[in-house]
Amino acid sequence: MRYELYYWAGIQGRGEFVRLALEEAGAEYLDVARQAGGEEQMMRLLGRPSVEHLPFAPPFLKAGELIIAQTANILLYLGPHHGLAPADEAGRLWVHQLQLTIADFVVEAHDTHHPIASGLYYEDQKKEAKRRTADFLKNRAPKYFGYFEEVLVRSGGKHLAGRRLTYADLSLFQIVAGMRYAFPKAMAKHEKKLPRAVALHDLVAKRPRIAAYLASERRIPFNEYGIFRHYKELDA
Amino acid sequence: MRYELYYWAGIQGRGEFVRLALEEAGAEYLDVARQAGGEEQMMRLLGRPSVEHLPFAPPFLKAGELIIAQTANILLYLGPHHGLAPADEAGRLWVHQLQLTIADFVVEAHDTHHPIASGLYYEDQKKEAKRRTADFLKNRAPKYFGYFEEVLVRSGGKHLAGRRLTYADLSLFQIVAGMRYAFPKAMAKHEKKLPRAVALHDLVAKRPRIAAYLASERRIPFNEYGIFRHYKELDA
Repeated sequence: MRYELYYWAGIQGRGEFVRLALEEAGAEYLDVARQAGGEEQMMRLLGRPSVEHLPFAPPFLKAGELIIAQTANILLYLGPHHGLAPADEAGRLWVHQLQLTIADFVVEAHDTHHPIASGLYYEDQKKEAKRRTADFLKNRAPKYFGYFEEVLVRSGGKHLAGRRLTYADLSLFQIVAGMRYAFPKAMAKHEKKLPRAVALHDLVAKRPRIAAYLASERRIPFNEYGIFRHYKELDA
Repeated sequence: MRYELYYWAGIQGRGEFVRLALEEAGAEYLDVARQAGGEEQMMRLLGRPSVEHLPFAPPFLKAGELIIAQTANILLYLGPHHGLAPADEAGRLWVHQLQLTIADFVVEAHDTHHPIASGLYYEDQKKEAKRRTADFLKNRAPKYFGYFEEVLVRSGGKHLAGRRLTYADLSLFQIVAGMRYAFPKAMAKHEKKLPRAVALHDLVAKRPRIAAYLASERRIPFNEYGIFRHYKELDA
């Protein structure tokens, strides 16, 4: 079965967490919106009255007859099908719990540059963005990263859930990469306290399929349209 | 088995979505933090190095040996164990997808009064709160509610996933109730476009176990410490 991933063509965004899982799994997939006419095809699908399980927003994944939306939910589906999650209930819930905490982090990272409205330009909420980012870098990001570092201390392996890689590890890799892009100064300082998270980032980056993906054109570069944006004035 | 729910004692907050599911299920549970010394007990548990699956934050549920955190993840666990989610994979993913969209709504509803930092007082971000709330009431809340109304149109029943109640319905009830409390003026206008969501709210409120719960002291009243807060100046 060839999956179809539907997500905005120009950004990593939330779609990237799904792309990383599909790439690590070696799954066959079409990144629909990046094909000619693909974004229109995505919008048509979202507008079709016959879609039974309507997504609120991209990303969503077509897997045979299934249409699955919400990033963490897509990973919940892919995990057991591709050996990217434990098979038992307790392990599955634990990895999903980690993913949902990463999802919370993603919202907060996004809202650093859009604290007032996602529909407004950054330039229209720059003052508020400075205030929100200052708090994010001082309090929130360290709290999340400290948490994941502690999880790695307890995990009994190099991965969040122990010895085996799960989709949550791929997502933590993306968080570290994104934070380095958006806030290079703040992250350089902060990373010193995160030896395990950084080691996990490096481990993921070296996995053959991920390394090949990162070096390919399929990996969209970070830019100022996605979740992790670099605005010099925000990086304290 | 008696569940133990760990959540802040003074607010409905995110814990309420779990409480509603436990109440509808008729499950035996202890609301730990609301007992004498309960919040200290919760914090001690969070600080204990022996906890294998460490929660990032409350709410979390103790189910036998399992400790499960993240609201939507707790419901993912409770759903199939108490007939509050479909048994098949497609149905389970669909209800979870709806719940994750509700979770996104909850973040945005919270951030109306805390657009800059959850660690600061509302009074310290009042100006920003006004801007964010104006956008939330004009654009975001209608987008979410319009989505759930459309899901109800397509569901083939009175509930989000069809004829049978799921935990997502209980959560949508809570969203409607919360929005009525926080923004009575804006909601009164907006509700006219949401006949199905309002009907579902009423249906849930009348379910015997939910009705008994809402009338009991176990239901903490809405207040200005939780997610849905009423500040007259924000209700346009």
